[in-house]
Amino acid sequence: MTVGNTEAKRRGKGWWVLAGAVALGLLLWAFYPMAGASGSGGTDAAPAAGAGSSDAGSAGGRSGTEAAAEYTIYPAGTGAEGQQTLPEGQQLAEYRVEDGVKVFELTALPVKWSVGEKEYEAWTFNGTVPGPQIRVKEGDRVRIIVKNRLPEPTAVHWHGLAVPNKMDGVPMVTQDPIPPGGEFVYEFVAEPAGTHMYHTHFNTMKQKGLGLYGTFIVEPKDPEPWKYDKDYSLMIADGRLGFVINGKSFPHTVPIKLKAGETARFRLMNVGDQVHPMHLHGAEFTIIAKDGQPLPRPMKANTLDLMPGDTYDVLVSFDRPGTWVWHCHVISHVEDAQGNMMGLIQVLQVEP
Amino acid sequence: MTVGNTEAKRRGKGWWVLAGAVALGLLLWAFYPMAGASGSGGTDAAPAAGAGSSDAGSAGGRSGTEAAAEYTIYPAGTGAEGQQTLPEGQQLAEYRVEDGVKVFELTALPVKWSVGEKEYEAWTFNGTVPGPQIRVKEGDRVRIIVKNRLPEPTAVHWHGLAVPNKMDGVPMVTQDPIPPGGEFVYEFVAEPAGTHMYHTHFNTMKQKGLGLYGTFIVEPKDPEPWKYDKDYSLMIADGRLGFVINGKSFPHTVPIKLKAGETARFRLMNVGDQVHPMHLHGAEFTIIAKDGQPLPRPMKANTLDLMPGDTYDVLVSFDRPGTWVWHCHVISHVEDAQGNMMGLIQVLQVEP
Amino acid sequence: MTVGNTEAKRRGKGWWVLAGAVALGLLLWAFYPMAGASGSGGTDAAPAAGAGSSDAGSAGGRSGTEAAAEYTIYPAGTGAEGQQTLPEGQQLAEYRVEDGVKVFELTALPVKWSVGEKEYEAWTFNGTVPGPQIRVKEGDRVRIIVKNRLPEPTAVHWHGLAVPNKMDGVPMVTQDPIPPGGEFVYEFVAEPAGTHMYHTHFNTMKQKGLGLYGTFIVEPKDPEPWKYDKDYSLMIADGRLGFVINGKSFPHTVPIKLKAGETARFRLMNVGDQVHPMHLHGAEFTIIAKDGQPLPRPMKANTLDLMPGDTYDVLVSFDRPGTWVWHCHVISHVEDAQGNMMGLIQVLQVEP
Ligand SMILES: [Cu+2]
Ligand SMILES: [Cu+2]
Ligand SMILES: [Cu+2]
Repeated sequence: MTVGNTEAKRRGKGWWVLAGAVALGLLLWAFYPMAGASGSGGTDAAPAAGAGSSDAGSAGGRSGTEAAAEYTIYPAGTGAEGQQTLPEGQQLAEYRVEDGVKVFELTALPVKWSVGEKEYEAWTFNGTVPGPQIRVKEGDRVRIIVKNRLPEPTAVHWHGLAVPNKMDGVPMVTQDPIPPGGEFVYEFVAEPAGTHMYHTHFNTMKQKGLGLYGTFIVEPKDPEPWKYDKDYSLMIADGRLGFVINGKSFPHTVPIKLKAGETARFRLMNVGDQVHPMHLHGAEFTIIAKDGQPLPRPMKANTLDLMPGDTYDVLVSFDRPGTWVWHCHVISHVEDAQGNMMGLIQVLQVEP
Repeated sequence: MTVGNTEAKRRGKGWWVLAGAVALGLLLWAFYPMAGASGSGGTDAAPAAGAGSSDAGSAGGRSGTEAAAEYTIYPAGTGAEGQQTLPEGQQLAEYRVEDGVKVFELTALPVKWSVGEKEYEAWTFNGTVPGPQIRVKEGDRVRIIVKNRLPEPTAVHWHGLAVPNKMDGVPMVTQDPIPPGGEFVYEFVAEPAGTHMYHTHFNTMKQKGLGLYGTFIVEPKDPEPWKYDKDYSLMIADGRLGFVINGKSFPHTVPIKLKAGETARFRLMNVGDQVHPMHLHGAEFTIIAKDGQPLPRPMKANTLDLMPGDTYDVLVSFDRPGTWVWHCHVISHVEDAQGNMMGLIQVLQVEP
Repeated sequence: MTVGNTEAKRRGKGWWVLAGAVALGLLLWAFYPMAGASGSGGTDAAPAAGAGSSDAGSAGGRSGTEAAAEYTIYPAGTGAEGQQTLPEGQQLAEYRVEDGVKVFELTALPVKWSVGEKEYEAWTFNGTVPGPQIRVKEGDRVRIIVKNRLPEPTAVHWHGLAVPNKMDGVPMVTQDPIPPGGEFVYEFVAEPAGTHMYHTHFNTMKQKGLGLYGTFIVEPKDPEPWKYDKDYSLMIADGRLGFVINGKSFPHTVPIKLKAGETARFRLMNVGDQVHPMHLHGAEFTIIAKDGQPLPRPMKANTLDLMPGDTYDVLVSFDRPGTWVWHCHVISHVEDAQGNMMGLIQVLQVEP
């Protein structure tokens, strides 16, 4: 039971790594392409990519087996070519407009993915974990061409979106599964407004555990009753890639930079299979929506109780500057067996 | 990590089974005795059975050991003789009226019970999992004669009901346990109105895990502030019978038939030991009560976060027809190790 | 599957133990020093200890290794010398006032700690599990001298309190860890009002699992919108000490005595790593705050869904006298493998 000084020092190691990581993260942050930190003004945050096809990583007419044999390695956090990186380390999905329809392409494909210390074979949409964020406006007609370059069938469910039954992505019930090398075209009107998700609904334990998910934000047509300066999405997952926020494990989660006094909207999503009560240091947050639906009355808290499948929107404003953490309070999700910090820890760097 | 086409096809099997099961379910549904889909009108949903005794499976004066040796096998979903089947696959408890008291009989007894693919020795009230639904009106005086035909003691707790301490069912604290072959008479005024449960409170991990539980609905004396067309109870459990809704594992959970536009009240209860966030496809629901207590303000969501012991009442109305699923978002509760769908999936068949 | 009468009797044993324990508990209760059951009047519940130092168990200048070798054994539930025992079995932290600052001392040290049937080496603040309750008034300036007499580094996080970043207790981010034999002085203004916690934030799985945590109550400056007669804190934990409420496992949890009709405020905190839905028998409670923040509208329930890191404030009033239990509905947290009751069960003794 007693632990010597040597071990005690080793225990501290994770935090020394953090010190470096925070510095590194801030450095990286400074060089990120500013994806136009999507604000509250109701503007269309996802810039139209014109008619260019975003078939990053698409395997064309090759067989699924061939595709599976060719892994693409993206530098951690940069995503597939042609995708913009959001400040929180996700990618933003491009689209083209055809006859008034916003057309997205999602290619399910295996890649080597680094969550930080460890590299995995991940199964991804467009080469990143999470897949690129789809961000459209309430009432937009969207078409999403899903190409399957995995070695097994798949299907995509639009979690929280009011789609026609045929577009719901439940294999054998609402559609045939998409075979390897095949594709399926989903089309629907984006509603309701709010924070939603997309993810595989086939062999889900494996496919979702390997990274086959993304965020789906529907901006409201009418002004919302809250104001904020910044807008971030944090997708929390567990499974075969370990405990990750936006595809990264601490200390490799991407630090977020805020100024004291400004208000940030955070969209937290639990696409994993375990509960993740996310405890914020340094401020209370105000919960404004669950599953994309506004609460009848916002409520304050400092621990956000995310069950699998939940999405929450919260507003946060810091009075006091400093490096604050927002972490899961299930300790085995934030510490490894040696007591080193890892996993579900998000750093918030608050400047005066 | 690569999965061949053969395996991929096998993975899809669960869903082919579903396709058949949905068809089968609808077929079965068409032949169910219509239990007078208990509506919102405040009428007495549980028809009085007159003076007939409902001692289904009762072992009279025989010893517990004898009783345990005689298992009754009921056809899946039909329950003990004399019990009506509700559309969602539960039974409705009969009662007789004696001097103004509604008298129920619950016999704890082992039976062979099929959850679908698998058959178990279950421990049940009156031969079904869940036991028959007790449905009375707020303020009713009820008497419940519990007979123990199990090979070990038991006791029944009325979860959510305001009973006198002596009727609370906690062995050694409020009563002696009911020995094998013995009985105990519980009597109390049914209140408060709302969605409650009853379950064993003795050697609970085993007895509850084997199926010794049921639903207890108290209809309100005064009109409620919400309107609905149909009323269903879904009792969710885990334990030795696996993951079951009303005693069945998908694809053998009983499909529920709705019409687009009509409003259904669902009463979800978690009598298991794990969290079950139930995610609904195709519609948002409105949460109107927790633990039988109306929320100060109803709230919308699409994932209902059920912890062990929780009951929730929600209203659901579908705009779009089709076969929609309502499932736990903990994937290990809805998929087996081979990726086949099973467990906590409820099918809702919505007609135009 | 069949269980003989002998085993059946053994199963009941836990409850016979309860019968004795309730009697014993009430006896003990009668002799507890009455810690001035902290009421609703807004008075300063923690009596000033003057200038006396409360360095109970402090090891002075000795090395951590020496300190670790000397375990202090406190009689169960009595705590370190100089600490008052609250009726619910926690200790109340003493403080001295220096230049208007309330000065507390917390010494992290190993002790032998009995949770009831079993004794463990626990890691504690001031020799008890939980550590002594810090109870101050909103706006108070507090100074907390933390001395480390453990054989490894530590640090203390003030969970829910709005502290300056340097006082947040996250090693390597906001401070160096406190080495064995060292100390760190935390100082901040106590806010916001409400129910908070303190706990180790270093090698947390081990240190928190061993008991290194306590409750931190900030009484409001302005009157609250609710009235109550009694005020109890129940700190729920899991980990290496098993499932404990205020450091004790049933039947050794300290019974709480109430009168029918009086209103008690309970502050429940989950400092463990698992969900603990605490189901109350005999009454509904009204949830008034989460994480110290008042709910916009209080809500009623009978099962309180505590995730790790959550604190809740609820009001309870019983109409009906008797011995009622408040227990976790995850059965493996309240029953051992033999079916004997243990762990997260709180007894409430309600007198007419
Ligand atoms: Cu989903
Ligand atoms: Cu219960
Ligand atoms: Cu904490």
